[in-house]
Amino acid sequence: MIMEITVHRVAYFNAAHRLFRADWDDAKNFEVFGKCSNPNYHGHNYELVVSVTGQVDPETGFVMDLKVLKKLIKTEVEDQLDHKNLNLEIPEFKEKNPTAENISVYIWNRLRTHISSNLALEIKLYETPRNFVTYAGK
Amino acid sequence: MIMEITVHRVAYFNAAHRLFRADWDDAKNFEVFGKCSNPNYHGHNYELVVSVTGQVDPETGFVMDLKVLKKLIKTEVEDQLDHKNLNLEIPEFKEKNPTAENISVYIWNRLRTHISSNLALEIKLYETPRNFVTYAGK
Amino acid sequence: MIMEITVHRVAYFNAAHRLFRADWDDAKNFEVFGKCSNPNYHGHNYELVVSVTGQVDPETGFVMDLKVLKKLIKTEVEDQLDHKNLNLEIPEFKEKNPTAENISVYIWNRLRTHISSNLALEIKLYETPRNFVTYAGK
Amino acid sequence: MIMEITVHRVAYFNAAHRLFRADWDDAKNFEVFGKCSNPNYHGHNYELVVSVTGQVDPETGFVMDLKVLKKLIKTEVEDQLDHKNLNLEIPEFKEKNPTAENISVYIWNRLRTHISSNLALEIKLYETPRNFVTYAGK
Amino acid sequence: MIMEITVHRVAYFNAAHRLFRADWDDAKNFEVFGKCSNPNYHGHNYELVVSVTGQVDPETGFVMDLKVLKKLIKTEVEDQLDHKNLNLEIPEFKEKNPTAENISVYIWNRLRTHISSNLALEIKLYETPRNFVTYAGK
Amino acid sequence: MIMEITVHRVAYFNAAHRLFRADWDDAKNFEVFGKCSNPNYHGHNYELVVSVTGQVDPETGFVMDLKVLKKLIKTEVEDQLDHKNLNLEIPEFKEKNPTAENISVYIWNRLRTHISSNLALEIKLYETPRNFVTYAGK
Repeated sequence: MIMEITVHRVAYFNAAHRLFRADWDDAKNFEVFGKCSNPNYHGHNYELVVSVTGQVDPETGFVMDLKVLKKLIKTEVEDQLDHKNLNLEIPEFKEKNPTAENISVYIWNRLRTHISSNLALEIKLYETPRNFVTYAGK
Repeated sequence: MIMEITVHRVAYFNAAHRLFRADWDDAKNFEVFGKCSNPNYHGHNYELVVSVTGQVDPETGFVMDLKVLKKLIKTEVEDQLDHKNLNLEIPEFKEKNPTAENISVYIWNRLRTHISSNLALEIKLYETPRNFVTYAGK
Repeated sequence: MIMEITVHRVAYFNAAHRLFRADWDDAKNFEVFGKCSNPNYHGHNYELVVSVTGQVDPETGFVMDLKVLKKLIKTEVEDQLDHKNLNLEIPEFKEKNPTAENISVYIWNRLRTHISSNLALEIKLYETPRNFVTYAGK
Repeated sequence: MIMEITVHRVAYFNAAHRLFRADWDDAKNFEVFGKCSNPNYHGHNYELVVSVTGQVDPETGFVMDLKVLKKLIKTEVEDQLDHKNLNLEIPEFKEKNPTAENISVYIWNRLRTHISSNLALEIKLYETPRNFVTYAGK
Repeated sequence: MIMEITVHRVAYFNAAHRLFRADWDDAKNFEVFGKCSNPNYHGHNYELVVSVTGQVDPETGFVMDLKVLKKLIKTEVEDQLDHKNLNLEIPEFKEKNPTAENISVYIWNRLRTHISSNLALEIKLYETPRNFVTYAGK
Repeated sequence: MIMEITVHRVAYFNAAHRLFRADWDDAKNFEVFGKCSNPNYHGHNYELVVSVTGQVDPETGFVMDLKVLKKLIKTEVEDQLDHKNLNLEIPEFKEKNPTAENISVYIWNRLRTHISSNLALEIKLYETPRNFVTYAGK
């Protein structure tokens, strides 16, 4: 029998952002995005859960070595986003709103290319303890 | 490619309840429901996670505006259940036991009619930090 | 040198209550206690932290055996309050409002008589994750 | 309509373990398992979430009585693993590495035989707050 | 006997900030403040615990009505700081670094003038779940 | 006016231990220490909160740079205790029981010599989420 197990690793990054569309005026941006549209930015402690699903390697008892996943999250996510202004410093969000939805897609895409194709990948991203999103690349 | 993302919103309400069947005597109720059958009621801080799945709107970057979902949870759940006695004050639980299972169905049904039909809905309800249920309307 | 250390033990109980004064009418009770005055009761998952301070016994390395403290909390707090209606079933709260403040005094008094007088006692009681009290018997 | 709901119960156990293969030398074990291969063992507070999915019994409003599930987790998991050395005292891990993946399979198998076959079973096991696994028997 | 009890209320706000001194160059700022000196700002979900100590009012059973404290925290803290850029929008931090230490003093000073002088006040402020400060006005 | 503020930093380590006295037989050790006396060891995820109190430096706005405190905790605590067997690998606990009380004194003593004498130091150590100790060097 082939067992599938999911391993999860938690990480954190702190960043500034604002939600707005350059083609809308301030009034329209405030109407849609509320205080999240503040032109001076605000920020969050983001909590990230990366979930990798696959078969257990009978030699090690691992689906994927979490030490490897931890390093991958550091180089591909933390080093890119931690203590950054998402709108100004991440090219992806020059044109696109850094909503939790869009940030989760950005993170998923960066990690996907570094994880073996026989492993499934899912992302959970907390913007606050009460607001979060999940994305599985589908 | 069409991306599906789930957005989650957390809410809270505090309520009293008891578990019992009127057609059973006290001994039978205690045998099945234990101290949860106390005729004088007991209570909980319920924690609710509402999860909505759908495509990301490319204009806003939102699956669903969480400000809207927050208000909907307030009017449809918190205003109905917070600081209430579920057995005495919620018509649904006059005849039916207010177990976490049945409360989650009640909440799901109330929210479902107010959320666009192209969005999927799932509920997680914590009765205590160690006991909780999930319901997706299936 | 005499070292003082504090040991802490966490416990839980779930109960129903309401806040009101029998000598006030409903309007006055609602004005002061808001929805907490609901005559049908509401409830909470209470979280309790019991803290005991004293010198470390050099033989065991314990200030107080936490297995003993755990049992004491069970008989003196959980068995009294868990799954109860505080107003109706706890004589202390027949006349006195079961606010978090008054419940913490009740718990402190019950535990104090069972703990060695050379140990200091402090109580923290969470009514909700956002509302809590501390009491040290002073 | 037949409703499916999942009920979840949280439990804890504390244990010592090490990760290594007897057919590898110390250098190889350290290379693959890092400080987790320490021959003197280290340990964890494991947190377990047991999830059972099925139809709600219309008489009780329960999918499965959580008091029954709690007792089952005690006899099948806590009494076996709590305050144990997993490598030395659990026959399953004499030959197999007690990784979170393998422990979750061990727990799932023990619980599965005691839960009605018309109920689905899933396990979540936290080795630390930042490293955890999920297993559904597939 | 006069009993002193402390009541605690938890609140949240999300803000952007940076740590730097205008009289230092970028290299010196980076040397002292590290990535926290990023000129484009970063941000946090701040968690605030406000603690008020005093005697229990025998009529209500309250040290201070937490509904009143909740509103005070909203007008004096959340409305001022939530979704703001602390450096640009809070006059206090035009000249002074918005470290957790300095923000806690700012909050304490704002609340102190609105709380009865026979009640003691203490602030706990989490910048992240792993970094926090406490200030009691001494 | 001289303001005193406390800064807190959270850290983690995972270790194996057992509680016993070599001059007692197994029966006596089990009677006093229960399952914690298991000769094969068990283990915990320890959570540590280090609290440093002093005046705020007006130039930086810091009581103590938390980046410095983080590094100090790494070299003096994590590098010593993480993934270790406390009884076998920490000389301090060859003769003395590695209770949470004694471990907190060990940690406090190691940190104290590296922190400026005009700063006060306090330690909180969680052995489990429900059992923890605090020690301030007095």
